[in-house]
Amino acid sequence: MTIPVICVVGRSKSGKTTLLEKMIILLKQRGYRVATIKHHSHHGFDMDVPGKDTWRHAQAGSDHVIIAAPDKVAAIRNVSVEPTLDELVATITDVDIILTEGYKRSSKPKIEVLRAERSAAPICTADELIALVTDVPVTLPVRIFTLDDAAGVVDLLEEMYLK
Amino acid sequence: MTIPVICVVGRSKSGKTTLLEKMIILLKQRGYRVATIKHHSHHGFDMDVPGKDTWRHAQAGSDHVIIAAPDKVAAIRNVSVEPTLDELVATITDVDIILTEGYKRSSKPKIEVLRAERSAAPICTADELIALVTDVPVTLPVRIFTLDDAAGVVDLLEEMYLK
Repeated sequence: MTIPVICVVGRSKSGKTTLLEKMIILLKQRGYRVATIKHHSHHGFDMDVPGKDTWRHAQAGSDHVIIAAPDKVAAIRNVSVEPTLDELVATITDVDIILTEGYKRSSKPKIEVLRAERSAAPICTADELIALVTDVPVTLPVRIFTLDDAAGVVDLLEEMYLK
Repeated sequence: MTIPVICVVGRSKSGKTTLLEKMIILLKQRGYRVATIKHHSHHGFDMDVPGKDTWRHAQAGSDHVIIAAPDKVAAIRNVSVEPTLDELVATITDVDIILTEGYKRSSKPKIEVLRAERSAAPICTADELIALVTDVPVTLPVRIFTLDDAAGVVDLLEEMYLK
């Protein structure tokens, strides 16, 4: 069975992370296992966990660092070619749904966050979207939710992908 | 071709991370690609990267968080059963050597760090070890290196596994 993958997209600072946080909390409360993939479009990101042995390995130049505990596994690796979303999805098992932050060019179903103070025009067309989460009075033929209605969005995901 | 896996083991605070750091730096200087796996025997470890979006996903309860940039991919996931060393090794590609910190019960070749101020007795038997790195005057039938001789240890690894 394929795990559904839904991309939360939108302009920078439109509120994607905040919406995702609320969606994750609600999905977990409803008993689902959730994975998330964040697309970071620039080179490099900080993983500075001061004083932790593992990141001393990374600092020393290890190309692929894994830390494994009885309840958690973390890994960070250098790549010469950025993995595609499908390649990343293939590394995930044991969850009910995968949500991404970003990946607006993927062909997966998308939820766009559109905030008036950032822009009045969506970046996606209606046929790419399953929902638009916004405070802009748009008239796209898609399900529209207010910026604080994470519960409405999660209801829609449950209906479409989790029942 | 199987990637060689060598475990750096020893009692807590014997200096495993410091030796590994030096080994990683030397191996990288010599042109090798290196992966490292740290065994963390207690439940949980901190991955608190303050203010980073990804860890907001983890904080919100995401069971498997991935962050992907053009040059780096990081992931943290919850597990109900701790993966074995071989399962972790199977997730690593594109490196010349894998060094672990810990996994003293694995059947891989081992390097033990033995520091007089922590203990005078090794935790491994001679037949498990390819080297003992120590300031204790022991007479085990294995290659013995001083605590600051990471270069000697790396020479040995090159000879045994990388030529």
